[in-house]
Amino acid sequence: MSDPNDLAAFLELGWQRLTRGVADRRAAARHPVLATVSPDGFPEARTVVLRGANRTGGVVEVHTDSGSDKIASLQARPFAQLHIWDEKVQLQLRLSTSVEITQGAAVAQKWSRVPGGSRMAYGASPKPGTAIPHAHAYEKLASESCFAVLTCTIRQIELMHLADPHRCAVFKADDGWCGEWRVP
Amino acid sequence: MSDPNDLAAFLELGWQRLTRGVADRRAAARHPVLATVSPDGFPEARTVVLRGANRTGGVVEVHTDSGSDKIASLQARPFAQLHIWDEKVQLQLRLSTSVEITQGAAVAQKWSRVPGGSRMAYGASPKPGTAIPHAHAYEKLASESCFAVLTCTIRQIELMHLADPHRCAVFKADDGWCGEWRVP
Repeated sequence: MSDPNDLAAFLELGWQRLTRGVADRRAAARHPVLATVSPDGFPEARTVVLRGANRTGGVVEVHTDSGSDKIASLQARPFAQLHIWDEKVQLQLRLSTSVEITQGAAVAQKWSRVPGGSRMAYGASPKPGTAIPHAHAYEKLASESCFAVLTCTIRQIELMHLADPHRCAVFKADDGWCGEWRVP
Repeated sequence: MSDPNDLAAFLELGWQRLTRGVADRRAAARHPVLATVSPDGFPEARTVVLRGANRTGGVVEVHTDSGSDKIASLQARPFAQLHIWDEKVQLQLRLSTSVEITQGAAVAQKWSRVPGGSRMAYGASPKPGTAIPHAHAYEKLASESCFAVLTCTIRQIELMHLADPHRCAVFKADDGWCGEWRVP
């Protein structure tokens, strides 16, 4: 273990764990929980798949069906918090982000790289959330027109390390990610 | 596998997995993610420990430090969504709840049952979230006056089963939990 007071090393650990989620299906960061606020002001959370993480740009990327409830929520309030609990290193990551939704021609190249089997996640008839008479009364469409990319620009990263004693730090884009310790 | 169209059996599975979290430290439902809306309207999410789940009453219970950010959020907007991803059965549970915060004499008996080591989670000096000069510049107080119980009354349960093909259903307190299938 390095110096427990080294903020830069702590942030480095956070980014290591985060980027691992993009490449490694078994990494904790592969499946963050994405929290949003519904159009009528209620908290919502669901599991998503981490598709990209770029430290230089300060962004993470998630793909979703444009008919899903999170799109309606993000159109109303373009903010999401991504939550990851990485048990292996006892680290909770919370990324406060501003979210841009992109569809159509601008993401055609990304769509072309989505494997055939994974395309089923985009587009359904009727659309996701519709009440149906029995469990399987729907079709998956694998529809490019329903493919939406969420570009989540990170405003703040909070890391909570449940080693003994606990450590917590907050890093903000606004102050160049220098970070500060917080009471856990 | 029972009849995939049996809504009652699906809800029963959800409650089985949920209540397991209270007794079994290794169950997925032991550590839900609690999503709230901050006083200034931003989504927030953090891991919590499930302390109670009562199907008859339609409530789940979480304990927290009264100085934590979630208390300020819940005082402003008394709603939380609890999210659980139970990998073993490929089931996502989302509980939409109204939250009541209780402290002091009303929860003295619950406090008396909190084991000594776990009491450190309640109370810190300075209070949680305060900026501090180095990682360990705080004390944990094990303070009964900082022990808060969140009683989360469930308004809706959404279950998403990632078996093939996926199944999704929503159960509402308002209609007696009879439930309906939804497009996943």
